[in-house]
Amino acid sequence: MTANITASFHPPRRILMGPGPSDVNPRILAAMGQPTIGHLDPAFVDLMDEVKGLLQYAFQTRNELTLPISAPGSAGMEAAFVNLIEPGDTVIVCQNGVFGGRMKENVTRAGATAVMVTDDWGTVIDLEKAQAAIKANPGARALAFVHAETSTGVASDAAALCKMASAAGMLSILDAVTSVGGIPVAVDAWGADATYSGTQKCLSCTPGISPITFSERAAERIRTRGVPVQSWFLDMNLIMGYWGAATKRAYHHTAPINAIYALHESLVILQEEGLEASWARHRKNHEALRDGLEAMGLSLPVDPRVRLPQLNLVSVPDGVDEARVRAELLEHHGLEIGAGLGALAGKAWRIGLMGYGSNPANVRLCLSALEGALLRQGVKLKAGAAVAAADAAYA
Amino acid sequence: MTANITASFHPPRRILMGPGPSDVNPRILAAMGQPTIGHLDPAFVDLMDEVKGLLQYAFQTRNELTLPISAPGSAGMEAAFVNLIEPGDTVIVCQNGVFGGRMKENVTRAGATAVMVTDDWGTVIDLEKAQAAIKANPGARALAFVHAETSTGVASDAAALCKMASAAGMLSILDAVTSVGGIPVAVDAWGADATYSGTQKCLSCTPGISPITFSERAAERIRTRGVPVQSWFLDMNLIMGYWGAATKRAYHHTAPINAIYALHESLVILQEEGLEASWARHRKNHEALRDGLEAMGLSLPVDPRVRLPQLNLVSVPDGVDEARVRAELLEHHGLEIGAGLGALAGKAWRIGLMGYGSNPANVRLCLSALEGALLRQGVKLKAGAAVAAADAAYA
Repeated sequence: MTANITASFHPPRRILMGPGPSDVNPRILAAMGQPTIGHLDPAFVDLMDEVKGLLQYAFQTRNELTLPISAPGSAGMEAAFVNLIEPGDTVIVCQNGVFGGRMKENVTRAGATAVMVTDDWGTVIDLEKAQAAIKANPGARALAFVHAETSTGVASDAAALCKMASAAGMLSILDAVTSVGGIPVAVDAWGADATYSGTQKCLSCTPGISPITFSERAAERIRTRGVPVQSWFLDMNLIMGYWGAATKRAYHHTAPINAIYALHESLVILQEEGLEASWARHRKNHEALRDGLEAMGLSLPVDPRVRLPQLNLVSVPDGVDEARVRAELLEHHGLEIGAGLGALAGKAWRIGLMGYGSNPANVRLCLSALEGALLRQGVKLKAGAAVAAADAAYA
Repeated sequence: MTANITASFHPPRRILMGPGPSDVNPRILAAMGQPTIGHLDPAFVDLMDEVKGLLQYAFQTRNELTLPISAPGSAGMEAAFVNLIEPGDTVIVCQNGVFGGRMKENVTRAGATAVMVTDDWGTVIDLEKAQAAIKANPGARALAFVHAETSTGVASDAAALCKMASAAGMLSILDAVTSVGGIPVAVDAWGADATYSGTQKCLSCTPGISPITFSERAAERIRTRGVPVQSWFLDMNLIMGYWGAATKRAYHHTAPINAIYALHESLVILQEEGLEASWARHRKNHEALRDGLEAMGLSLPVDPRVRLPQLNLVSVPDGVDEARVRAELLEHHGLEIGAGLGALAGKAWRIGLMGYGSNPANVRLCLSALEGALLRQGVKLKAGAAVAAADAAYA
């Protein structure tokens, strides 16, 4: 059996302003392309220690159990649930977008019961409703929620939700896939028990790895749980043996060496810039994009107080073929923006300004390209107004 | 909270002759370092189709459900079990090394019962014992085994085992992590139902991805199973929606774009060389290494008829500090060879000649470096005899 002859692949030129992956810093691509070494090599063991320290910085935590899961953010989510939850447990899941729904799937498949607290897509998690669910389910094991909903561009109040869970003796599980690096994530200050993230959002790294951190309380729960973790690959009791004390690395699985090179470099870059400076940059570019979009007559439906600067939900004007706009941006400019997901499919675009991609050049390109596409569909708007408004925001 | 200032990482020079990862072809590293594009980009969708075709070639199958799992080989193993097995099932697991034991863990954690058929480490799976277990457990769902045991360097008779399973109406699940590209793997000819592999062995690719293929019978089993797959991340019913027909890709998780670039390039290289030529090259370099090792007075304990050419088990001579030998090779030559695993820890080395690393230069370097290290430990051997024997093998 032979395949057709296939040539090497060379990607087209792209500028990634969707919900992720975001534009990867060339330094990270170069780091990733370095020669592979062994997963038990002393040099790699040192690198692992550095990655751990850098992740602690990114998560703002001293949690000992802080490491990268060797798979994408979805696996990070699953790692949090399958390690902390046992069959028969109850978990309160707050849902205000796609990823809360995925949490429910994880809870159910772990043999536990999910009590759902639902809010409209595009709004924050209602703290009173969450508190009421906690009161109504005093024996629940955990409260789970998404900090930064990638499907809607909304940031919920993670500090308050973690505090509520903790006060009720419940663990908190939080999805910080899109938040880390873009807005403050303060694991220790919040008292968060399990927090996972992704590499392909505000860390501007290649996709495929999920940084995760567990509090000591969560780690103790994992060590003392009654039944084995249902996933061998994601069992933190085993992974700890490889990522734990450098003196006694036990083989669990072969680490994705080059992906760890890339993650390391992305975290070095974050550290060089500094978290506060990174957050401020994301904010600044968001404001310029927002001013430009509004000058174009477009609206950002999310309440300004809870908008994610790194992920901008934009309503599609009536009569506009939103898929055609995206296709044109991609074809003419190599520019990728995101479609609406789930309940927002066809109704909104998602424009990412994440990590390396959060910069003035991308803001200007996006505004001018979008303006052109809308003009071609007959939308009435004043040409040039968007970029002028963005310029004013930077001035 | 701030981390200590951390610099960019630059790996030391290494030659990887352990059990994997193997030396990565520079073409693959270059492919991996190309700019990231979106996981729903039309160009990426085309790339996915190519990867699928190339994997079908590598596995020698026409199976429609053939794709890369976005995580290492351990996750590929878990994907095979959690998709095909339901709680209450019985699975016959043949174990003749480390990875058969891991299969047992997977079966148990999926709520099923593992009936173990055990053989000594370093020997093949005994077909009569396997047949007896099948006869004794007529209702078993599957027969699972490791084709090429990376912990011992033994190839078992996959064709016969798959045939036995099929004749008894059971599914076959086989681990081809170390075999694909190094020795024949003929999924369709064997009638294998679930076959998974890894990228970091004879494909010479960076670690982190697990190619997998399911027969139509297995795919039907997945589509019609009674309870949901316990892992959301590894649920093939959902993954099929992304890797299925190119016209309707449904978002499941963000694919590890750059790792897929790398896998694609590794498969293009395999296709350029051709499977038969690759197998012959692995065989040739193994023979030269074997002749050199034996000329040095070292023994290869595995029966020659079932030795893996890509993974050579070598007995540590009495009185030799095997860890010191490995440390010296690494320090003086940047050369990594593998330690014994499990029952073979301290008793054997594992020397890999995999993919790009299976070449005469590596054979010579390994022989001469090993000779020097043994001489320094007082082993009596004739200097130069090993390389001369290898040279003769190539002549």
